[in-house]
Amino acid sequence: MTAPFTTLDSFRSHLATLPAPDPAAGAAAAARNGQLTKPPGSLGRLEDLAIWLAGWQGRERPQASAPQVVIFAGNHGIAARGVSAFPPEVTAQMVVNFRHGGAAINQLSKTFGAAMTVHALDLDHPTADFTQSPAMTEAELVAALTTGWNAVDPQADLLVTGEMGIGNTTSAAAIATALLGGVAEDWVGRGTGVDDHGLARKADVVRAGLAAHAALLSDPLQVLRCLGGREIAAMAGAIARARAERVAVVLDGFICCAAALVLHRTQPGALDHCLAGHVSAEAGHAGLLVALDKQPLLNLGLRLGEGSGAALALGIVQGAVACHSGMASFAEAGVSGA
Amino acid sequence: MTAPFTTLDSFRSHLATLPAPDPAAGAAAAARNGQLTKPPGSLGRLEDLAIWLAGWQGRERPQASAPQVVIFAGNHGIAARGVSAFPPEVTAQMVVNFRHGGAAINQLSKTFGAAMTVHALDLDHPTADFTQSPAMTEAELVAALTTGWNAVDPQADLLVTGEMGIGNTTSAAAIATALLGGVAEDWVGRGTGVDDHGLARKADVVRAGLAAHAALLSDPLQVLRCLGGREIAAMAGAIARARAERVAVVLDGFICCAAALVLHRTQPGALDHCLAGHVSAEAGHAGLLVALDKQPLLNLGLRLGEGSGAALALGIVQGAVACHSGMASFAEAGVSGA
Repeated sequence: MTAPFTTLDSFRSHLATLPAPDPAAGAAAAARNGQLTKPPGSLGRLEDLAIWLAGWQGRERPQASAPQVVIFAGNHGIAARGVSAFPPEVTAQMVVNFRHGGAAINQLSKTFGAAMTVHALDLDHPTADFTQSPAMTEAELVAALTTGWNAVDPQADLLVTGEMGIGNTTSAAAIATALLGGVAEDWVGRGTGVDDHGLARKADVVRAGLAAHAALLSDPLQVLRCLGGREIAAMAGAIARARAERVAVVLDGFICCAAALVLHRTQPGALDHCLAGHVSAEAGHAGLLVALDKQPLLNLGLRLGEGSGAALALGIVQGAVACHSGMASFAEAGVSGA
Repeated sequence: MTAPFTTLDSFRSHLATLPAPDPAAGAAAAARNGQLTKPPGSLGRLEDLAIWLAGWQGRERPQASAPQVVIFAGNHGIAARGVSAFPPEVTAQMVVNFRHGGAAINQLSKTFGAAMTVHALDLDHPTADFTQSPAMTEAELVAALTTGWNAVDPQADLLVTGEMGIGNTTSAAAIATALLGGVAEDWVGRGTGVDDHGLARKADVVRAGLAAHAALLSDPLQVLRCLGGREIAAMAGAIARARAERVAVVLDGFICCAAALVLHRTQPGALDHCLAGHVSAEAGHAGLLVALDKQPLLNLGLRLGEGSGAALALGIVQGAVACHSGMASFAEAGVSGA
């Protein structure tokens, strides 16, 4: 499927025509769930998960055996402003590590049987320093959205979108501040591990970014263009593509959710096919999840990015699907009811 | 290994001679963790889990590829007192369901590669109604502890203990009330789904049980004998055996934790090899975890028992182990440090 957009306006139009889940499949899955050999509701969120996934997949028994993990990497002009504990060359170095199988996300993808692909977005050309000019031109933004769109395997039964990009928690914090309000300090966090001075620099950079582009920030897609990064835009493109294919998405941490927030604010309901894999230890993530109205599956203090928290949550979804698909009914097992 | 006890006193003596984790293996695992290609601490609880497991397994790189799930089933005299939404014959029917692969725990064991065994403990002879006389004789209790002890595979790299037994949330609530104090209403919950009248009956039964055996309740092992069930005792025996073999245990919900509480109150530190897989929706479980000083890995509203919440948490442990074992170091990957 060729991306159905070549401009920011056509991407916006596309978001207004999103498919819904299949109500018949969801109802059939709920009916099956009610007959399985367990007290009603005793599998808690696992039951809701399986029924929800059935609706998106359009089948009574959902599947989670072929998940896809897509990782996008981008470089940021603001990385030169001392907003990260790590130097900018780490973005490219980690892409090599992803390709050689050495990162956390490689191990988690393998553990849960996910096919993982890595997309480095023009790493030699960081986005512009957004305190000075918009991070991306419209053409650059559309290119990044398209990379994300094209990265999704429509045959996958679940999608995780992850990222790598030194400086990108600051970019995500700028997006959150622009779209959700509050002050910069509400949304910046320690990222890969900055100290108090670094944290103050991050807030300064966010403030400067918002001031520089104030006239454009009423439009979420302009927020993404002015303050975002290529990997953040690519995640937004991938999440949109997944919706077009009715592939459910497991959202990761702060940066992934900032990308998702752009879609959510552009088109209400655009994230109905998404669930929150976890709440991270990055300061602003819990607030972002509230804004997205998503309850995280896991809360284990992760703050790595790379899609790691979402990939870990794949095991929960797989457990939910296995119970729903594989359990016997009361009638099949000859077990007495309540 | 023959069980090193034939009486309740020799079981008690055995609990006083428990092995500790290997500090050198734990230190080596922590050193390795510090070199992996991620910001320090960014995998949150996954890092602590892998290091903790390394200590118990006595190796720098812990493993979680061969977990064991052991399910114990028992029948309860108090089931005749209207404390469950399901009739007592469901215990035996569910054992058949476990053996035919139709229960939730079968699906979860398969999902996470666990070997599952089922042990039905004298189902045709329920424990005595503990409002009238002690649930078990000492010989019956020792037999159940021995069944649990012998059920553990010392080659497993993790153990989940689960249970089935109509009426056993009431037995577990009686144990919790006896050992932790408070009133019966603090510890009874809806179990498989009783209504308000059923909940009141459960509290009445707990109160009657405590009154009937008041003279014996200062000894946790007598609490287990007077108020417990065979499957609860078997879980205690299995958890003790796992410790003897330095096999780490993932605790399940309310009933499993009531079994664990007996060991904890008999011998401080007896649960150092255990982690809490989840906090269930059964009312008293969160309080039990506080008493055990364990932070649950998951909180997904499960209240099924069977070891299901603990089995689901196996995926988290496997993710932790995969990251710790498989990730490249900064030096190996040529990634710059902070």
